[in-house]
Amino acid sequence: MSRPVTIALDAMGGDQGAAVVIPGAAIALERRPDLRFVIYGNEAAVQPLLDAHPALKAVSELHHTDVAVRMDDKPSQALRAGRYKSSMWRAIEAVKDKRAAVAVSAGNTGALMAMATFCLKRMANVDRPAIAALWPTLRGESVVLDVGATIGADAQHLVDLAVMGAALARIVLDIERPTVGLLNVGVEEVKGNEAVKEAGKRLREADIRLIDYRGFVEGDDLGKGTVDVVVTEGFAGNIALKTAEGTAKQIAHYLRAAMGRTLLARIGYLFAKGAFDALKEKMDPRRSNGGVFLGLDGVVIKSHGGTDALGFASAVELAYDMARHSLADTIRETIAQVHPSAVAEA
Amino acid sequence: MSRPVTIALDAMGGDQGAAVVIPGAAIALERRPDLRFVIYGNEAAVQPLLDAHPALKAVSELHHTDVAVRMDDKPSQALRAGRYKSSMWRAIEAVKDKRAAVAVSAGNTGALMAMATFCLKRMANVDRPAIAALWPTLRGESVVLDVGATIGADAQHLVDLAVMGAALARIVLDIERPTVGLLNVGVEEVKGNEAVKEAGKRLREADIRLIDYRGFVEGDDLGKGTVDVVVTEGFAGNIALKTAEGTAKQIAHYLRAAMGRTLLARIGYLFAKGAFDALKEKMDPRRSNGGVFLGLDGVVIKSHGGTDALGFASAVELAYDMARHSLADTIRETIAQVHPSAVAEA
Repeated sequence: MSRPVTIALDAMGGDQGAAVVIPGAAIALERRPDLRFVIYGNEAAVQPLLDAHPALKAVSELHHTDVAVRMDDKPSQALRAGRYKSSMWRAIEAVKDKRAAVAVSAGNTGALMAMATFCLKRMANVDRPAIAALWPTLRGESVVLDVGATIGADAQHLVDLAVMGAALARIVLDIERPTVGLLNVGVEEVKGNEAVKEAGKRLREADIRLIDYRGFVEGDDLGKGTVDVVVTEGFAGNIALKTAEGTAKQIAHYLRAAMGRTLLARIGYLFAKGAFDALKEKMDPRRSNGGVFLGLDGVVIKSHGGTDALGFASAVELAYDMARHSLADTIRETIAQVHPSAVAEA
Repeated sequence: MSRPVTIALDAMGGDQGAAVVIPGAAIALERRPDLRFVIYGNEAAVQPLLDAHPALKAVSELHHTDVAVRMDDKPSQALRAGRYKSSMWRAIEAVKDKRAAVAVSAGNTGALMAMATFCLKRMANVDRPAIAALWPTLRGESVVLDVGATIGADAQHLVDLAVMGAALARIVLDIERPTVGLLNVGVEEVKGNEAVKEAGKRLREADIRLIDYRGFVEGDDLGKGTVDVVVTEGFAGNIALKTAEGTAKQIAHYLRAAMGRTLLARIGYLFAKGAFDALKEKMDPRRSNGGVFLGLDGVVIKSHGGTDALGFASAVELAYDMARHSLADTIRETIAQVHPSAVAEA
């Protein structure tokens, strides 16, 4: 058996805190028995839950922390109150100190990104971090980034995003050379986004081994799964992600309303319940739960704050896969190839 | 009875051209008997269709044109080949010459925007045009702009978009003082988009009579219908629009697949067919067909290129409403109030 994979957990993050994190980790452990955990959180809250999951307890180290970052803390507040001592910070720090391969937190995104950036620092040759999302598509899943770590992007940052996203897709989607597209707008008369155009030129010319560059894609290509990796700057990416989530909720609402309206519809619903359940599972955000923070010297995964144990388990399994396949090393090596400063230094 | 409203039609635009435009206009006329039309297109194609719709023929003037802009023409090509003589140009020109109140075309968006900008010129105090979409929401409909006329926006352009969007919402949604939100990202740690922040400050401070400013909204607020008007720059707006369309198609696909999978599901579908039909109608893009070009000296409406007669009729009725309620005048007056140069000149 290969070496176990150790994941650091922020047990206080998310709407439910330890009540979701600990059972979630226990589910992940059942599926990936070579997981090990270092857990940070309030002992009074976490210990009883650990006691209730003996298999998990046997492979976990619990470290007590007094401070928990709140879901509505501003990043600056969180840093001031929680640096060095909060469960969130300590989980990230375990990655920095190489005691864990990846940190997972369901805590608030802004605080997590601020702490991760502050604690782990940027990866060499990467100017800015990014958040990658796993996007359910008609073909399976795609990696979409940046969905909101930073706003705006020059051509080089878009190329860096392409590299980081392709490295992630190779692991998550198990594709040797993922297809990559740059998100752009289709209206022809616009002058176009210069950074996007320039990034496209560079990706075409650089001919990166890791990347099968396919040119521009549009918003509706996200759901189609036209490419494995969709690259965009964080403002448009965040809006696309939330717009898709909102649209899915809107249609689910229409569907519920339509199915409850008449007796015939309610009867039909009963017959088709299996099909509706399958649809529900297909649209279940827990299936691909977890934004991956990239571009830092260490990987941090953000689980949805409102997820349940099953969703948190998905995030932990994602962390496991990242660690197992040395995501950070793949990114580091490929980034060095495409980054002008690295080339200049070489 | 009030004065009739004359709409200029590009009969050659769209995937089907006159075969959709003429029956579409006929449907609109049934619903709005005080419509009049000036129609531009190839006589050989249009005249037989007009002959088949005598009521429409009786209130229409047909002008023959030799040149039709193709759906895949680049804006520059379209301008070169079609300026002054294409059906698209002539329809826009009818608005410029005050022979029609609004022009409607299902032709290609890039060409239409290029010609409209070239022919009508910008409205006083507006630097750049915009395309507004009617977005179906859980509460009804919202106006979202810009969905792709131009890329990037400074604070003043965002304020202009807010004014134009509110003027449109007042007519379409029949609300005296529409609520307005600025599309932004929710991730707290980001520095934020400076233009959006500054626009928010100006909208708050200006206290425009037409606008009930509600602050920032996020991507998922689009489907919820949190505000009547969502303001964003064209890159993010276009991506949001296409992402929502793509997500809706994706879910429809899942739903069809789920309902066909088992015998029970197929039986259930039969019982619930009425409900499914209601859902389908709810999601029907033809119900709110038409992007409105704003910020020019005259209003142009872009109908979906792939729409049918019913969808084209919606676009014509939208045009009718714009004209009936003097959209352009409302915008002109309010823009003058918020524009620094206009204030300086005053």
